[in-house]
Amino acid sequence: MVAACVLGDWGTSSLRLWAVDQAGRVLAERRSGQGMGGLAPEAFEPVLREHLAALAAGDAPVLLCGMVGARQGWREAPYVALPAEFGAICDAALPIGMRDVDLRILPGLSAAEPADVMRGEETQLLGLAGAAGADGVVVLPGTHSKWVWLTEGRIGRFETAMTGELFALLGSQSVLRHSVDLSAAFDDDAFAEGVARGLAAPQRLTRLLFGVRAATLMDGLGRAAATARLSGLLIGAEIAGAGPLDGVTLVASGALAERYGRALAVAGIPANLVDAEAATRSGLMQAARRLWPGRLERTA
Amino acid sequence: MVAACVLGDWGTSSLRLWAVDQAGRVLAERRSGQGMGGLAPEAFEPVLREHLAALAAGDAPVLLCGMVGARQGWREAPYVALPAEFGAICDAALPIGMRDVDLRILPGLSAAEPADVMRGEETQLLGLAGAAGADGVVVLPGTHSKWVWLTEGRIGRFETAMTGELFALLGSQSVLRHSVDLSAAFDDDAFAEGVARGLAAPQRLTRLLFGVRAATLMDGLGRAAATARLSGLLIGAEIAGAGPLDGVTLVASGALAERYGRALAVAGIPANLVDAEAATRSGLMQAARRLWPGRLERTA
Repeated sequence: MVAACVLGDWGTSSLRLWAVDQAGRVLAERRSGQGMGGLAPEAFEPVLREHLAALAAGDAPVLLCGMVGARQGWREAPYVALPAEFGAICDAALPIGMRDVDLRILPGLSAAEPADVMRGEETQLLGLAGAAGADGVVVLPGTHSKWVWLTEGRIGRFETAMTGELFALLGSQSVLRHSVDLSAAFDDDAFAEGVARGLAAPQRLTRLLFGVRAATLMDGLGRAAATARLSGLLIGAEIAGAGPLDGVTLVASGALAERYGRALAVAGIPANLVDAEAATRSGLMQAARRLWPGRLERTA
Repeated sequence: MVAACVLGDWGTSSLRLWAVDQAGRVLAERRSGQGMGGLAPEAFEPVLREHLAALAAGDAPVLLCGMVGARQGWREAPYVALPAEFGAICDAALPIGMRDVDLRILPGLSAAEPADVMRGEETQLLGLAGAAGADGVVVLPGTHSKWVWLTEGRIGRFETAMTGELFALLGSQSVLRHSVDLSAAFDDDAFAEGVARGLAAPQRLTRLLFGVRAATLMDGLGRAAATARLSGLLIGAEIAGAGPLDGVTLVASGALAERYGRALAVAGIPANLVDAEAATRSGLMQAARRLWPGRLERTA
């Protein structure tokens, strides 16, 4: 069957592409470690063409999201300023001049006062916009976790917490590296205890962090427990920093989905889990329907 | 003149030694980059002997503080548990078996529930204990800043904030490295603004940190201003995390004394500055007077 279009998420460390039919069903998929971060600019087009050929995509149009549209990516797709309707985000997709393929890149979003930016998560939010009950607060955990306040058809505001990057840096580069083991089996109780401490005193986070080191020296806290406590402290403080919450939509998968799900439970905040990759694909699909209405049916 | 004793601070990255007379006056001084961190264990004694010879210290007793007494140092001088009288800290000085020299190492301090440790700062606190008006809260900023609640003759409790280490890590290893310039001239206004933001919302620190990156992308925040803002955010949040304060004694020198002095002023907290090295030397002297009463006069 001929692909109606190709949807893709091209990030810093990976590339995922899906060829879909007119009804939005996935016909074929490509997953690669060929992220933007590891490729020279002159390799972008050949790499994409190779995967499109493997998908037998013919001359189907291609829609991409993620770091491919960053300044350090293929070409910068300028940020769309908040407040933004979802339609405006789709319409700002940047056309890339490829000879025979209609290739476009979705833009990121920017906020002012305080300044903030996202790139990639806006597509997951597009995906949620089609789902019922997606209004309210959306959490998209990661290296730079995004917290988004959604109202129907509009992204009101968002915040970024450096949780994932801090966890990696502290665990591998700081004095805490002597206390933790990033490859250790996950200690659920120590994690929950860390979350509770971070929730109770987020304003003391940098003190709580050193406490992990002190506890290994003084209390005999083991490496697996220290690692889980460190993760819990950071995530607990991140949740507390969002302010009062009645409930959230959690967009995540794998270990992150488990950790944030558990942390939100410790905080007593109801969470509705949406798989991160499903949200990305759904968002790309929503945007593609708007960009190429003749190629895709209105409802999948 | 013959030295009554030799006092020294042997840390991870430096060694400072002072030969003093019976009245506590400095006769000669040695400063070296031969810190514990860069020496093999078998080099500790030869390095010390070389400096003692240069000081013409003869067989004067030697008292050291700092990482020399850590597990990774010359020999571990076990932590003294809080609450601790200053006399008990002096009495716990660990004798090292050197053939012809009475060498002792001052211990660090430990706290329980929550666990915490210090090594080196206890000597500066000993130095303050002799000064008038030293009761109250003492701030000793650094890689791992110490906040100490002192009452006459006793250290009640203390806390450690990872401020200095976070600043160095974030500025050199995180996404913020693209926004800052650690060698830039100091921007006092941007620093004060960062302090104010950190003071106002310490529970949102990991969001404020990412805001530095966003402000360079969106608001054109320059590298010097971003660097100072990053420093201000961390120090502001550190101060806020200590809770309400009527005033503090700030033990610091150089750039740290300036930054923390400015930050405490922004917070409206009166601060009494004590030079860090003077406090170390004074603390070593107080301890030496107690350990070798025949060698040193009771008052300097």
